[in-house]
Amino acid sequence: MGDPEQHPGDIDLEAFREHGHELVDWIADYLANAERYPVLSQLKPGEVKGELPDSPPEHGESLEAIFRDVESTIVPGLTHWNHPNFLAYFAITGSAPGILGELLSAAFNVNGMLWATSPALTELEETVVDWLRQMMALPEGWFGMIQDTASVSTLCALAAAREAISDLDVREQGLSGAPPLTLYASDQAHSSIAKAGIALGLGHGNVRSVPSDDAFRMDADDLNRLIRADRADGKWPFAVAATVGTTSTTSVDPVPEIAEVCERHGLWLHVDAAYAGPAAVLPERRDVLDGCDRADSLVVNPHKWLFTPIDCSVLYTSRPDVLRRAFSLVPEYLKTEHGDEATNLMDYGVALGRRFRGLKLWYVLRAFGVEGIRARLREHLRLGERLVAWIEADPDFELMAPAPFSTVCFRAHPDDWTDDEAELDALNERLLARVNATGEAYLSHTKLHGRYVLRASIGHLRTTEPHLARVWALVKRELSTLLSE
Amino acid sequence: MGDPEQHPGDIDLEAFREHGHELVDWIADYLANAERYPVLSQLKPGEVKGELPDSPPEHGESLEAIFRDVESTIVPGLTHWNHPNFLAYFAITGSAPGILGELLSAAFNVNGMLWATSPALTELEETVVDWLRQMMALPEGWFGMIQDTASVSTLCALAAAREAISDLDVREQGLSGAPPLTLYASDQAHSSIAKAGIALGLGHGNVRSVPSDDAFRMDADDLNRLIRADRADGKWPFAVAATVGTTSTTSVDPVPEIAEVCERHGLWLHVDAAYAGPAAVLPERRDVLDGCDRADSLVVNPHKWLFTPIDCSVLYTSRPDVLRRAFSLVPEYLKTEHGDEATNLMDYGVALGRRFRGLKLWYVLRAFGVEGIRARLREHLRLGERLVAWIEADPDFELMAPAPFSTVCFRAHPDDWTDDEAELDALNERLLARVNATGEAYLSHTKLHGRYVLRASIGHLRTTEPHLARVWALVKRELSTLLSE
Repeated sequence: MGDPEQHPGDIDLEAFREHGHELVDWIADYLANAERYPVLSQLKPGEVKGELPDSPPEHGESLEAIFRDVESTIVPGLTHWNHPNFLAYFAITGSAPGILGELLSAAFNVNGMLWATSPALTELEETVVDWLRQMMALPEGWFGMIQDTASVSTLCALAAAREAISDLDVREQGLSGAPPLTLYASDQAHSSIAKAGIALGLGHGNVRSVPSDDAFRMDADDLNRLIRADRADGKWPFAVAATVGTTSTTSVDPVPEIAEVCERHGLWLHVDAAYAGPAAVLPERRDVLDGCDRADSLVVNPHKWLFTPIDCSVLYTSRPDVLRRAFSLVPEYLKTEHGDEATNLMDYGVALGRRFRGLKLWYVLRAFGVEGIRARLREHLRLGERLVAWIEADPDFELMAPAPFSTVCFRAHPDDWTDDEAELDALNERLLARVNATGEAYLSHTKLHGRYVLRASIGHLRTTEPHLARVWALVKRELSTLLSE
Repeated sequence: MGDPEQHPGDIDLEAFREHGHELVDWIADYLANAERYPVLSQLKPGEVKGELPDSPPEHGESLEAIFRDVESTIVPGLTHWNHPNFLAYFAITGSAPGILGELLSAAFNVNGMLWATSPALTELEETVVDWLRQMMALPEGWFGMIQDTASVSTLCALAAAREAISDLDVREQGLSGAPPLTLYASDQAHSSIAKAGIALGLGHGNVRSVPSDDAFRMDADDLNRLIRADRADGKWPFAVAATVGTTSTTSVDPVPEIAEVCERHGLWLHVDAAYAGPAAVLPERRDVLDGCDRADSLVVNPHKWLFTPIDCSVLYTSRPDVLRRAFSLVPEYLKTEHGDEATNLMDYGVALGRRFRGLKLWYVLRAFGVEGIRARLREHLRLGERLVAWIEADPDFELMAPAPFSTVCFRAHPDDWTDDEAELDALNERLLARVNATGEAYLSHTKLHGRYVLRASIGHLRTTEPHLARVWALVKRELSTLLSE
């Protein structure tokens, strides 16, 4: 690296070049062979930290030395989201084109707070989110922008909903002195909605949990009743968050009916389609977004089921002026000569600094093409159907919820075993722990109607039917072993 | 790429490997020669968009085809933050080691919402933020975590401050019914503080602007008076945001005196050291964080002046339990078996999903080492002093604020010219536009005491004294031309 005290500046770029080539090769091998690692890290809390020095080095180290520690310390401490048998949570799936987009983005290192601070960042972002809008058949003219995560997209959307209340001046006066503002989401909605309610100062107690039906979908009649009751009670209902693809079961709320209720009462409708939105890229599944054209805002995460490395969450709104009013603050040092002809994306959210996230999404959409993306989504849906069929054909297992996409909720319920729910819960909890401890597969869990349920979410680009068959055989084998103990 | 309809999955990894090697070489060349591009993009609004297709491609395209468009369409639309003559805003500075860290992070594509979803992400993050804490001589035992931007770190810190009010239950009940909560920052504080106040539901009108003194530092007596007056008026003062390195002039608020006021009134003290915090890595400048050991929270951005690609903002707090209480919500599907022995970082902020940002910071701290970082910071400070000396020695220019770091506020004020302030403002505005239009340098501006002022911020790894001398000559040349017109 030379002597940094003599020549401050970046490291020697020949070292960067050499190590960069090694990294590219290593990554290609890693992606091709991620299954040689245990999918769930086998380390105990503190083990990675124990391998790392307590203090930073006084003098610079070589990139090779750093990378040796990546291999010896970091890689064993990873849970490999790239493993084809990673079926936990939502199996977010990066892709090689997306990785290259991120590499370029890190190299350019531009901050797109203003149009002028990199016109290409703003305009490429506007273009790719519009491409995605077209792919999902969302209304023409909707404004879209990239945020880091759905949690933040949702917070911004609900801040806009709050700002849209024309009888209050929340932006200037805050919520003190205002009536309690109430927000509605189903009992299956993601925790980020309640978290946004807390952060925005509404209070967790004013986030209403609307009961869901047998298929885990929000009951629009109950929603309507809750809104009326709150109104009668002096509360101020202002927004509903419907979900297309809930986290536990991927159920789809009846958005047309919910939109009807929102329109009747004048409430902002936000749709959380973070996971399942991409299904609408398939013409035969476009119905998953039925009614969403009536939404005020909608979030979809290309970093979940659209092959884009984390983080990339797209927030759409039909009311960008309100979103802007909720967030825009332009101090003198951020004023530029460009008026209405250029968009300054800092005006539409909390974060001022903005990475060049559009680049990776552009790489992904172009490298795969719309048909290529459809082919991959269809394959995941097909694999989901296979798993459902295997579960339904097996007397020792049962499906616990409809599986409208490629996420499947099931549990072991051996034919000749007890029907005691507490014992079934315990059995399934042990089963999950055993499966995950093998390092051969990673599933997660949820509770449905109080019952402990296993979740398998198929969404990774490298998950094939043979992988899924091996996971299924593993689950069956671990159950047999458990039952024989 | 093969036929994606036949073989869904990722793209051919040989194509990734080949193009990855080309990209690494291209990036090494780009970093070495960023100055061959115009620093400020010369395009007009809409020009990048005009080059991009209106719709996404039906079929996949080669990585080479995509990259040809990067070169022809994206690069001309960039404002090159890597250009050595980028002196606008704060010159955020990535570095080659940080770029490689980001490449690996994109390849691993792990989501560190929970410890279990990648133990190495959480534990490396805990380790490197503690390294940085030691480097800045902040108190032992402080909790630290990485957020995307200082705006979000500040929002989280102020949410904790709100949660810390023991007589209210803001988390459960929200702010309706509570007295107006007031927040204090100087008239030089960053807009993100007011934005957080708006988002958190306090209302912009309850964000108090404390007057600053002649050196643009918060007046602690005025702060004390404002707090007393608000109390007397039925408001509820709850937090003060002090700044170490304000955005316009990089002034340093008198944190010890502010801490005194906060302790007297029982207010949360948040310190925004996003820009200038790294100066404390220098033993001879450790005083910039005087009094910060009495803060409840502090933010510093390694993506600004610590050679780490955007985004990487570190939020420290001495009261992690309060931060956790402000944000933690653990639905069933996110429960894991690990109790107090493992940290789940999702519990300490808005975003659930978390990129592996610690990796790039680790690469940077190791590749440079503490002494290597000090050498680079010292060089930037030395360059800042040079620029100040040139300005002070020139009868046509004047320094407009003290320059405690390497950001310099100045303006043209020709010796034999008018003293009319409006004309001086107009002259400097035109001067800035002309300098930036050359594409040879990029400066920004601010207003100080109502006067239009130019800002030059030296923070990039590749800015050397010859670069700075050329920028200074350019500014002088453009002024001469302007005056002769």
